[in-house]
Amino acid sequence: MAPGDTTVGSTPTTPIDPEVVEAMAPFLRTHFGNPSSSHVYGRRARDAVDRARAQVAALIGGAPEEIVFTGSGTEANNMAILGAVAHADDRGGRLACSAIEHPAVEKPCRLVGFRGWAVDTIPVDETGLIDMRAADVVIRRETVMVSVMHSNNEVGTIQPIRELAALAHSRGALMHTDAAQSVGKVSVDVNELGVDALTIVGHKLYAPKGVGALHIRKGAAIAPTSFGGGQEGGMRPGTENVALIVALGAACEIAGRRLAEDQARLRGLRDRLWLGLQAGVPGIRLNGHAERRLPNTLNVSFPGVRGGAVLAAAPDIAASTGSACHQGEEAPSSVLAAMGCERDRALGAVRLSVGRTTTAEDIGRATANLVTAWRHVRARASGGG
Amino acid sequence: MAPGDTTVGSTPTTPIDPEVVEAMAPFLRTHFGNPSSSHVYGRRARDAVDRARAQVAALIGGAPEEIVFTGSGTEANNMAILGAVAHADDRGGRLACSAIEHPAVEKPCRLVGFRGWAVDTIPVDETGLIDMRAADVVIRRETVMVSVMHSNNEVGTIQPIRELAALAHSRGALMHTDAAQSVGKVSVDVNELGVDALTIVGHKLYAPKGVGALHIRKGAAIAPTSFGGGQEGGMRPGTENVALIVALGAACEIAGRRLAEDQARLRGLRDRLWLGLQAGVPGIRLNGHAERRLPNTLNVSFPGVRGGAVLAAAPDIAASTGSACHQGEEAPSSVLAAMGCERDRALGAVRLSVGRTTTAEDIGRATANLVTAWRHVRARASGGG
Repeated sequence: MAPGDTTVGSTPTTPIDPEVVEAMAPFLRTHFGNPSSSHVYGRRARDAVDRARAQVAALIGGAPEEIVFTGSGTEANNMAILGAVAHADDRGGRLACSAIEHPAVEKPCRLVGFRGWAVDTIPVDETGLIDMRAADVVIRRETVMVSVMHSNNEVGTIQPIRELAALAHSRGALMHTDAAQSVGKVSVDVNELGVDALTIVGHKLYAPKGVGALHIRKGAAIAPTSFGGGQEGGMRPGTENVALIVALGAACEIAGRRLAEDQARLRGLRDRLWLGLQAGVPGIRLNGHAERRLPNTLNVSFPGVRGGAVLAAAPDIAASTGSACHQGEEAPSSVLAAMGCERDRALGAVRLSVGRTTTAEDIGRATANLVTAWRHVRARASGGG
Repeated sequence: MAPGDTTVGSTPTTPIDPEVVEAMAPFLRTHFGNPSSSHVYGRRARDAVDRARAQVAALIGGAPEEIVFTGSGTEANNMAILGAVAHADDRGGRLACSAIEHPAVEKPCRLVGFRGWAVDTIPVDETGLIDMRAADVVIRRETVMVSVMHSNNEVGTIQPIRELAALAHSRGALMHTDAAQSVGKVSVDVNELGVDALTIVGHKLYAPKGVGALHIRKGAAIAPTSFGGGQEGGMRPGTENVALIVALGAACEIAGRRLAEDQARLRGLRDRLWLGLQAGVPGIRLNGHAERRLPNTLNVSFPGVRGGAVLAAAPDIAASTGSACHQGEEAPSSVLAAMGCERDRALGAVRLSVGRTTTAEDIGRATANLVTAWRHVRARASGGG
């Protein structure tokens, strides 16, 4: 499978949209101005950054001046969480996040290291969905910020962020959501959701790696955590990454334009893959929520085998097992473990995804390859046992 | 003057080297891998990032694994200073920086906001050089980190960083230097200097805006200040900005190869500009150190006029006055003020710089334009007075 071909492989490697590359190219080749300088070259860069800001805001709602460009989704998540901590530092407090957050949320919550701060975990059910009754207990008057991802990167389950935001606000907490996986795949609107901060990642949107954004609602109690010039409203000082900011803006504009069409198309391909695998692999199980799920994501457990072995036997498929290898010992995905998935099923899991460049032929080929690979691994396992 | 033409204009707008653009282009168009993923596309990106890390280390000394890629010089400066503070947070302490630091150093020192932390300022003399006797008093046993820029962005004065590092170490403090202006223009070697941390900025090196690096000496007491995946040795988690990292590596490789030649050439052009201005503008003054100075920088004070007025009368020159406009009121440069420069001289200052694309003809034209502009503004001022 070619690098740009993302059939069951867009998760580890999303290509860059050629239209995005064209949009940013002038800012690498001829438009060198610094947006913070006042001369004519600077103004051209400033205008381009402002336009990108409006494009991002148009995709997710909110005002352009509420968008802060960052170097990654991790930076955006850290900015939201550590910024809320910095703002409330004098009084101390608690943070709350779900049991299935990305390390870029889970670690700043846990490792922030400020004295007097604690973190509470909100459990999820067997479909990966937040347990709202547990959330009602976990989110307290002392909670400064609740951070729950909009959708999960491994299983695609989409969380009830609007309900969580209402609950957080009723306790006086800020609501942040890491929407890295969702933006561009499903409709995401900061005002509908009622969140105070929302994370976007460029390379999940067919922009290059190295750019992201944080939406921060006007007036939200989030303080800057780095200091320097006045760029990005003082929240992210430093000379702007003009070319990649332009790229992210273009990627958002394209994603908004294509959203309805992409959604229907990806869901169709994804469901066709699932039907084919069900037909060829008796006992295969779906991980994640059957309906409340990203249209491009399919996480399945192959029965009686390790997911890694199936992928190894189908090497032309760029996918991910969602499991981490620790010192040679295969460990089950922490997301599946938090969903109460038993060990063998978790170890049999493979995360498959489809993307803009995936075709119906790719799906047919991938289905056949995965079924053949599973039969092969299964036969080898039976022969050896 | 065209945007790529940096005669007396490279300071606000350094172009990107076409060779750098070529080096990064494949990582925008075909090589989409995520360096943290294990499949073949990921390995290609990983190899490219590793190569860039070696290229940066080769230019400034130190080991490749001591280089942490960042999104800007500001981020690198914050990482060094707030990381030293985070590491020593339990015991509290003091920071020391010079009186002429960039806001990306001065502000994290002053605004860090941790209780029990204080900042001391090391004064400079009338050439912009650190007062070493004052430093000996200011740097105390309680000082956790000393941060002094390698060279100043406005006047180009190069500091005795090696002596400062020895002094800092003798008091048990870490030594950080912001070498944004120096790397690629003069020889900078972290081992010769003996620093614990050193900041590099891509767009000062003919790489694009949006990438920088921090050299952190192995074992230096600098803790991470953002949290997520394990990228960049845990110091800068988040998916790597592969294309711009490749660009920074290429820019460092080119800068190392061209250093001796560029230095001699820039100094020749810069000195020719200075001679021309001295001949045409009686009473013009040089700001900064006459010898210990970057080869590309010329900061001069035009007599009897505002620097901004001279530049406004020579609009084809992209330069900078180094003064900030506050609510319509012209304020003298804080760097010149710290050097004890009287107000009229400071307000007459213009920062001029030369770059790789500057030609001898550009210098001749710029000299003539500036002299004519000065005479014009001067005559207008005399007529009005």
